[in-house]
Amino acid sequence: MIAVCLLSGGMDSSTLAYLAKDRGYRLICLHFNYGQRTEKKERSSARMIAGLAGAEELVEIDLSYLTRFGGSSLTDHRMQIDQYSDTTEGIPNTYVPFRNANLLSIATSCAEARKGEAVFIGVQSQDYSGYPDCRPQFIDAFQELVNVGTRDETTIRIYAPFLSMNKQDIIRLGLSLGVPYEHTWSCYQNEELACGVCGACHFRRSAFESLGMKDPLPYEER
Amino acid sequence: MIAVCLLSGGMDSSTLAYLAKDRGYRLICLHFNYGQRTEKKERSSARMIAGLAGAEELVEIDLSYLTRFGGSSLTDHRMQIDQYSDTTEGIPNTYVPFRNANLLSIATSCAEARKGEAVFIGVQSQDYSGYPDCRPQFIDAFQELVNVGTRDETTIRIYAPFLSMNKQDIIRLGLSLGVPYEHTWSCYQNEELACGVCGACHFRRSAFESLGMKDPLPYEER
Repeated sequence: MIAVCLLSGGMDSSTLAYLAKDRGYRLICLHFNYGQRTEKKERSSARMIAGLAGAEELVEIDLSYLTRFGGSSLTDHRMQIDQYSDTTEGIPNTYVPFRNANLLSIATSCAEARKGEAVFIGVQSQDYSGYPDCRPQFIDAFQELVNVGTRDETTIRIYAPFLSMNKQDIIRLGLSLGVPYEHTWSCYQNEELACGVCGACHFRRSAFESLGMKDPLPYEER
Repeated sequence: MIAVCLLSGGMDSSTLAYLAKDRGYRLICLHFNYGQRTEKKERSSARMIAGLAGAEELVEIDLSYLTRFGGSSLTDHRMQIDQYSDTTEGIPNTYVPFRNANLLSIATSCAEARKGEAVFIGVQSQDYSGYPDCRPQFIDAFQELVNVGTRDETTIRIYAPFLSMNKQDIIRLGLSLGVPYEHTWSCYQNEELACGVCGACHFRRSAFESLGMKDPLPYEER
């Protein structure tokens, strides 16, 4: 039983890899470089986690063409990253248009070619500030696309087990699975010390705090 | 009005670019290298056609990761290309798993980032020997994915105008639009003289013949 698991190296996708492993799958992990600022750090986290989770393969894939289309502060380094704020309206400028459809399509190609039965993606709809490609409807629509767009004898299930979980739930689950969070990376902005103020840092840090724990990652003092 | 147009450099996608132009769109063409054997020839056809059709941009995108997953004779050069035969059953081994979902996802990312309104893809369901990602249901499912997976204010239509046309219809349309078929390339096998026996050659050549015309491309003698 093979599962293809999207592994950025962040908190959620690392927990995901451990979860898929725990469910009895052999893991092929895919890591994507799409020109995000902190790719070097993310990649090194992904390698560490893939190794520790016992993945059979970590395929590193270059999607730098997404950079060429522009439109996101994650990939256009001239734009400033939106900081988290309670009053932020609309979709943060870190949104990379239709990114998850790209990632899931690649994962499905891999799963069909390698006779895998499952694709795992770590999106969650609660904290994610309205990215359209993180919504439950999006995952449902993608499952339908896989059903009609692969061979009739192919059956691939798209699992997004964190869809309705929040970061606290994920950390709680991850701790029970032994996820080494000190080796994961979430910050959108920095590669040495996490910035603490981008959306990714905000949600991660406050989730640890709300569990009465300290995030094992070092943060920049402000 | 911007349209993103998938342009392999073959007969169908070249006709497609001319059709989108004729409908009044400004064209951004995307060409993909996914390790297919005849990529060099296809790329040079795509450049020529993009120029002649007046495209504003031709973005060449490397998808060689599809090669690394294997499973197709188009990208695994140790496998022999299936020749066309009336008695062939099932899906030919030139099928690249879930390829069109990859191509359409990229095109949609490009369209959303560039504020385009349309994506054109030249799939047809008739001649294509049952590739699952060339079926009308696949295009419908992809349109639904775009509707839920892009910003609410984004409206992108997926056009597959050749879905229910055959190659004859396409050539007839293309001739009325002035498509220079001598600059297009379809063969899956060769880059100098078209082989004449792979599925792509078979369908192309017989379409010209059935219109009482000669394909302007040179074919290998057998």
